[in-house]
Amino acid sequence: MKSAIGVFDSGVGGLTVVKELINHLPGENIVYFGDTARVPYGIKSKETVIRFSIENILFLLKQDVKLICVACNTASSLALPSIRHHFRIPIVGVIGPAAKEAVYATRNKRIGVIGTRGTIKSRTYENEIRLLDPQIKVTAVACPLFVPFVEEGVFKGEVINKVAQTYLKPFKDNRVDTLILGCTHYPIIKPVIRQIMGDQVTLIDSAKQVALEIKNILTADRMLNKGARGKHGFYVSDNPEWFSGLARTFLGKPITNAKKVEQCSL
Amino acid sequence: MKSAIGVFDSGVGGLTVVKELINHLPGENIVYFGDTARVPYGIKSKETVIRFSIENILFLLKQDVKLICVACNTASSLALPSIRHHFRIPIVGVIGPAAKEAVYATRNKRIGVIGTRGTIKSRTYENEIRLLDPQIKVTAVACPLFVPFVEEGVFKGEVINKVAQTYLKPFKDNRVDTLILGCTHYPIIKPVIRQIMGDQVTLIDSAKQVALEIKNILTADRMLNKGARGKHGFYVSDNPEWFSGLARTFLGKPITNAKKVEQCSL
Repeated sequence: MKSAIGVFDSGVGGLTVVKELINHLPGENIVYFGDTARVPYGIKSKETVIRFSIENILFLLKQDVKLICVACNTASSLALPSIRHHFRIPIVGVIGPAAKEAVYATRNKRIGVIGTRGTIKSRTYENEIRLLDPQIKVTAVACPLFVPFVEEGVFKGEVINKVAQTYLKPFKDNRVDTLILGCTHYPIIKPVIRQIMGDQVTLIDSAKQVALEIKNILTADRMLNKGARGKHGFYVSDNPEWFSGLARTFLGKPITNAKKVEQCSL
Repeated sequence: MKSAIGVFDSGVGGLTVVKELINHLPGENIVYFGDTARVPYGIKSKETVIRFSIENILFLLKQDVKLICVACNTASSLALPSIRHHFRIPIVGVIGPAAKEAVYATRNKRIGVIGTRGTIKSRTYENEIRLLDPQIKVTAVACPLFVPFVEEGVFKGEVINKVAQTYLKPFKDNRVDTLILGCTHYPIIKPVIRQIMGDQVTLIDSAKQVALEIKNILTADRMLNKGARGKHGFYVSDNPEWFSGLARTFLGKPITNAKKVEQCSL
């Protein structure tokens, strides 16, 4: 697949980014790698997430990609600042685009961020936002049960509502007017978050923002693929059945061609 | 640490087994390895769990162990049948001992099993039980949200009660009188399970059963350590802080000496 956009994620969540890439860049070829043998990254150390991310990038580079998107918020937070300049092709993470959009959207200069433990502990969103506007007050809360809920199909109902009310209370107390969904799984449970936060709060979906950013970069660099309909290939490090089973939820359509990559080729 | 019992687990759950080993074999040295870089195993494929398990065993063999305990139910179910005979030292999993105790305990020949998706899908508990008594009816249900609940400290309350009621309903419907807690995390939420299942149902804790089995093997082979108080060493493949933070819950006491093992030495 010549000159594709390479996308990697710890597992299946990055497919929400692929969905937006297909929406906004229908002509582009996409190669996706999900590290399902080592998923999740959210509780793992910076050092380990950096090692995994470099291995994933090296795999994608073999697929002849022109740009790499780190679709995982944890990898974007923990690894991208250290490794982005090791490589010649552009590498785009999900943090910057979402932070920029949130700064643009807020009226009262109070922004909230939800994510995995790794993402929140790294303070990468806070740092990005403060670089853009040091006046903004950022409230950040880890929501570690949201990923298992989404992966187990618990998208609504009493259980997730109760947990979400607890997680989201600090944002209501701090009257944020903008909330960043800082994990690729969270767009799936947007209705739950919307109901608790209310219609006045802007929810920023990092998947959509990164797709728009990539469109800008490819346009500026004259690397846009003018083809009518791109090809999409999916690779995983384990369990293509599990991955394909969840794909419909995240991508909005089924995946039938996910291939397992042998560890030695990583 | 000469002639220790080697124990491995996908992460922190196997510490419930270590707790029972210390109870029943206070003189033994123990070397524990938690594969926290690749945790959890519960959703991963048989092939991958076999590969990870072999790597973990090879690490323990370097520590001069006399017996290896596979403290993880998923690894015991998916990997142990294929790899147990590759090695010269005894390798003991958690499935056999718990299955044996359940067959002994049941009066109405209806046994329930809860575990991860991997454990339940493998049908290893059912096969073990049917080998012992083909008359027994086994009901098996995967409870994938229990592990994240335990790791996030959700041991009681409305949320876990609601989820547990849903998971455990088939056992009440099928009137099992014995329920195997087929995951090392589940002893932590025994009170929740006990309350739903009632006092008449026997809960079989695989951690305790495997400790008793190991005591039998070491006694029969005259390998018991007569020392008064064994030494306990803990190794992880990532994030010793996360591991140590959860240790008190699983082991009942803090761990201060957990060491990270570099991947290259695995």
